[in-house]
Amino acid sequence: MKLASLFGTTLRAAPADVEAVSHRLLLRAGYIRQIAAGIFAYLPLAHRTLKNIERIIREEMNRATGQEMLMPVVHPAELWQRSGRWHSWGDEMIRFKDRRAHDWLIAPTHEEAVAVLASSEIASYRQLPQLVYQFQTKFRDEPRPRAGLIRTREFVMKDAYSLDRDETGLQTQYAIMYLAYQRIYERCGIPVHAVNSAVGNMGGSKAHEFHYLSPVGEDTLALCAHCQYGANLEVAEFKRVPFRPVPEFAMNRVSYAPEPMHKVETPHTATIDDLAASLMIDKRQTAKAVFFMGEFADQSTKLIFCVVRGDDEVNEHKVLQHTHAKSLRTATTEEIAAVGAVPGYASPIGIDRSKTLVVVDWTVQMESGLVAGANEAGYHILHTQYGRDYSADLCVDIAAVYDGAICDCCGQPLALKRGIEVGNIFQLGTRYSEALNARYTDEQGKSQAIWMGSYGIGLGRLLACIAEEYHDDKGLCWPKDIAPYQVMLVSLAKTAEIKAIADQLYSDLQAAGIEVLYDDRDASPGVKFGDADLIGLPIRITIGDRSLKNGGVEVKTRRASESTTVRLDQIISTLRAHAMRPSADDIP
Amino acid sequence: MKLASLFGTTLRAAPADVEAVSHRLLLRAGYIRQIAAGIFAYLPLAHRTLKNIERIIREEMNRATGQEMLMPVVHPAELWQRSGRWHSWGDEMIRFKDRRAHDWLIAPTHEEAVAVLASSEIASYRQLPQLVYQFQTKFRDEPRPRAGLIRTREFVMKDAYSLDRDETGLQTQYAIMYLAYQRIYERCGIPVHAVNSAVGNMGGSKAHEFHYLSPVGEDTLALCAHCQYGANLEVAEFKRVPFRPVPEFAMNRVSYAPEPMHKVETPHTATIDDLAASLMIDKRQTAKAVFFMGEFADQSTKLIFCVVRGDDEVNEHKVLQHTHAKSLRTATTEEIAAVGAVPGYASPIGIDRSKTLVVVDWTVQMESGLVAGANEAGYHILHTQYGRDYSADLCVDIAAVYDGAICDCCGQPLALKRGIEVGNIFQLGTRYSEALNARYTDEQGKSQAIWMGSYGIGLGRLLACIAEEYHDDKGLCWPKDIAPYQVMLVSLAKTAEIKAIADQLYSDLQAAGIEVLYDDRDASPGVKFGDADLIGLPIRITIGDRSLKNGGVEVKTRRASESTTVRLDQIISTLRAHAMRPSADDIP
Repeated sequence: MKLASLFGTTLRAAPADVEAVSHRLLLRAGYIRQIAAGIFAYLPLAHRTLKNIERIIREEMNRATGQEMLMPVVHPAELWQRSGRWHSWGDEMIRFKDRRAHDWLIAPTHEEAVAVLASSEIASYRQLPQLVYQFQTKFRDEPRPRAGLIRTREFVMKDAYSLDRDETGLQTQYAIMYLAYQRIYERCGIPVHAVNSAVGNMGGSKAHEFHYLSPVGEDTLALCAHCQYGANLEVAEFKRVPFRPVPEFAMNRVSYAPEPMHKVETPHTATIDDLAASLMIDKRQTAKAVFFMGEFADQSTKLIFCVVRGDDEVNEHKVLQHTHAKSLRTATTEEIAAVGAVPGYASPIGIDRSKTLVVVDWTVQMESGLVAGANEAGYHILHTQYGRDYSADLCVDIAAVYDGAICDCCGQPLALKRGIEVGNIFQLGTRYSEALNARYTDEQGKSQAIWMGSYGIGLGRLLACIAEEYHDDKGLCWPKDIAPYQVMLVSLAKTAEIKAIADQLYSDLQAAGIEVLYDDRDASPGVKFGDADLIGLPIRITIGDRSLKNGGVEVKTRRASESTTVRLDQIISTLRAHAMRPSADDIP
Repeated sequence: MKLASLFGTTLRAAPADVEAVSHRLLLRAGYIRQIAAGIFAYLPLAHRTLKNIERIIREEMNRATGQEMLMPVVHPAELWQRSGRWHSWGDEMIRFKDRRAHDWLIAPTHEEAVAVLASSEIASYRQLPQLVYQFQTKFRDEPRPRAGLIRTREFVMKDAYSLDRDETGLQTQYAIMYLAYQRIYERCGIPVHAVNSAVGNMGGSKAHEFHYLSPVGEDTLALCAHCQYGANLEVAEFKRVPFRPVPEFAMNRVSYAPEPMHKVETPHTATIDDLAASLMIDKRQTAKAVFFMGEFADQSTKLIFCVVRGDDEVNEHKVLQHTHAKSLRTATTEEIAAVGAVPGYASPIGIDRSKTLVVVDWTVQMESGLVAGANEAGYHILHTQYGRDYSADLCVDIAAVYDGAICDCCGQPLALKRGIEVGNIFQLGTRYSEALNARYTDEQGKSQAIWMGSYGIGLGRLLACIAEEYHDDKGLCWPKDIAPYQVMLVSLAKTAEIKAIADQLYSDLQAAGIEVLYDDRDASPGVKFGDADLIGLPIRITIGDRSLKNGGVEVKTRRASESTTVRLDQIISTLRAHAMRPSADDIP
């Protein structure tokens, strides 16, 4: 391809509001263009790059015995009503009516479609296990599309679905896909961290996300450098060490040795810091109250009264997960007062429990004699004891992990990092197969629900992460398996004679199956080298009067500062020695 | 791939309401499944078939210097408001609002997107011509999805767009694409007829459709077997031979020789047949009135009073095109009476012209002394003369072509045939580039609008047409370039020893790069051969106790009635001699 004819031009600057480096470089180098917020066109360079990523993913899916198919983008509401997600999936899902006023949606994912196909295609245990996948456009109406291809509304996803006889089968395929994903990222050249993650909208029992670490990321991860434990902040666990543990027998609820509760005046101690300073105690000796209003599936709302140890913060995701609330928001002073609690001086002791869901973090249960609010401004109670003095609707882990928290697996400190989620895998179980009647007959002739897993990778986001990983201050620096072309051929020919030699080299390279972008424009060397660096192909070949005088062409890898002179008749064998990948031109 | 593991099972029967043979066989053979009316899932067999079609199309687009890219499925309304199609495109287009109540659409086509990209990427005449294309999902809310993949609501389209400096450039690229399309259909193995067609929603000056002839088709074509003239019924022209021509000087409106008008009583002659019989004249000596109510872009409606010769019928598409009405419907008796016309006895003579658009077919202009209605029940007027006795708002071609009409090019009879449109190409001109500011600077430094063409092929419909062309009463019979696999290997092994030989053959074929579907199920030969015929791979190999006793395996092409025995050690070379196509497994 001649650069002069390429659809997609380089830009001197990206728009001022573009922050992510991948976004800026992909725009500037002529790879992508924004059509609307979160909606992009992939120009030919990006399309070729995307096809290379697609090829890698396809090979790994096929290696895992995946069968490629193609399911529709538009689904009838009825499919999703059967699974319950027509209502439970929020504003991210686009719903519309057709000319006959029937309800439809633009599919954000395809569990329902796979389940309904499995219901017609799978009859017997003999047909299981199965793995099916597709590359298909998804649309999710993200509230805040950002950072170019990192968070878009429309994107192409490779989504795979495993079908198994039982949980063991599911776990086996899940493990295979976990490894397939690791291989995909490795082949794409980006380091990832697999972390435990929330199942969210998908449901099911277990999920992992694969994250590329980057300050551009929207997710926070807790990572252990020692034992490889990793989890999304939403679900991250950590070792909880009681400051002053409840005596053994108290844990068994036989008796309580600590002192009885004692109300004390504590003026101006509405924060844990002030309280601890005022009483000259450690924050870990206090109990902290945090209030949410939860909305539930039946449209009801209820005050959620959370209690964590004074040094801990509440993890809202964990609260959501444990309470099964649809959504949480911070409660107002009025809502808190309505149950008899006093913000700044609150505890579950003496409040109206009929209107409240009390959720106590389980570290609180392990502690002895915490100072808690007296539900009276300016007063606290000493020596409160969970189990003796108050109870909870739920006593579970609701504490937020923090940088330096102790890894529950190995005891070493966890580090918090920002990550971009480049893939996720879910053990769905039988939720969708039960709802959509995807069943098989087992060896005993009994009808059983199929166990499903689902496995997704957004291709555009992966492309952006590769660009985040491979660039320098001059532009992109694609790995050779990903690059849209292998070679940038820059002609600095000034005469018709030299130009003919350059043209011949271009033809020879193409004939040799080398993917080459040929810059024969009438522009200065500076402009040409600048564009070559910006576009970021692995190898640059410069041909011109000077290079030919020096005996051939100048060959330089993208990041090298120096070039080597290679004789014209040796250039193709030299390039081949670089282990060219299969030509993208062959890739339908 | 083992048939037992294939996602997609064969069915004994298709649903009763399935009529088209492609629909029936693709369902029965496990290629496709309907998710909703006009919405299909492509199971692995269909997906592989589709990828083969995609490869052929991609190769021809690349040969025509096309650059592949990927534009979004979802477009902001603003793009289409600029071109005017947000309103002019009817109910086929899905419009929806996002979470911020902004207007969006699911793109039925991509002219607007290409024009807006051209506006940012093309600056100079040096960058033209260009051809860009994509394979992308389209959604059109068809009122009557039917015949399986032949008319769906969601479909993958290859849509290409040419960008040129001027009309000559457009015509050149249009001709290149015309030939590329011919090559694509030829390589897919289906005969097509390129016909003149209406520009419709696309606008522009010229369009062709490519039709596969089939009684299942929804379009009617007028085809000349002698000179290759072909046109969609909507625009088909034919030679008009006056029955009794207006004398030469009358054509020049100098004077009118024929007799003056003469009103006669003609009871019970509300039809042309009755009128001609009653007066003992030829139908060609009468004028026929046909009434529509037209709705126009400014929301106004008007009676459209059409006059054709008695033996002609009105072509509504031509009326639409000439009057620029948005839509037509048959006028009611009241609406006709409101302008003073009497149905069955109507003519433009004496009616209220202020409320009427009179459109006279130009054959009527050539005729002398036609009998027309008197606008009085039971009365007609003899010797009416267009130009002398009445005028028209439009005197144009509005006659419908009919089987046996005379070809205007060569004078031979036209035949009417049903066709399935498998592609269309449009000379758009500058409509979109003007609206979306896609301009370039010419050699004189002057800003010019880019000339655009657009070129579409629906892949699923093409697949269905290939199935229509290649099948017999037992099932599908794919051409080898299209077939999802090359070989169906049927094992009739009864012992572990023979089964091991069959398994080894399967491995050997795969290792030789031959795409093979392996039926090692525990089923009867009848079931296996039936499924092999239904699925329709080009070559069937049978291995079993009997074949091995006979010296090897039985090889049979899909349509052959007899098989040949080939020695096991010669099977791969024999298959290779059949000129296998590139493996679809290599196709990302």
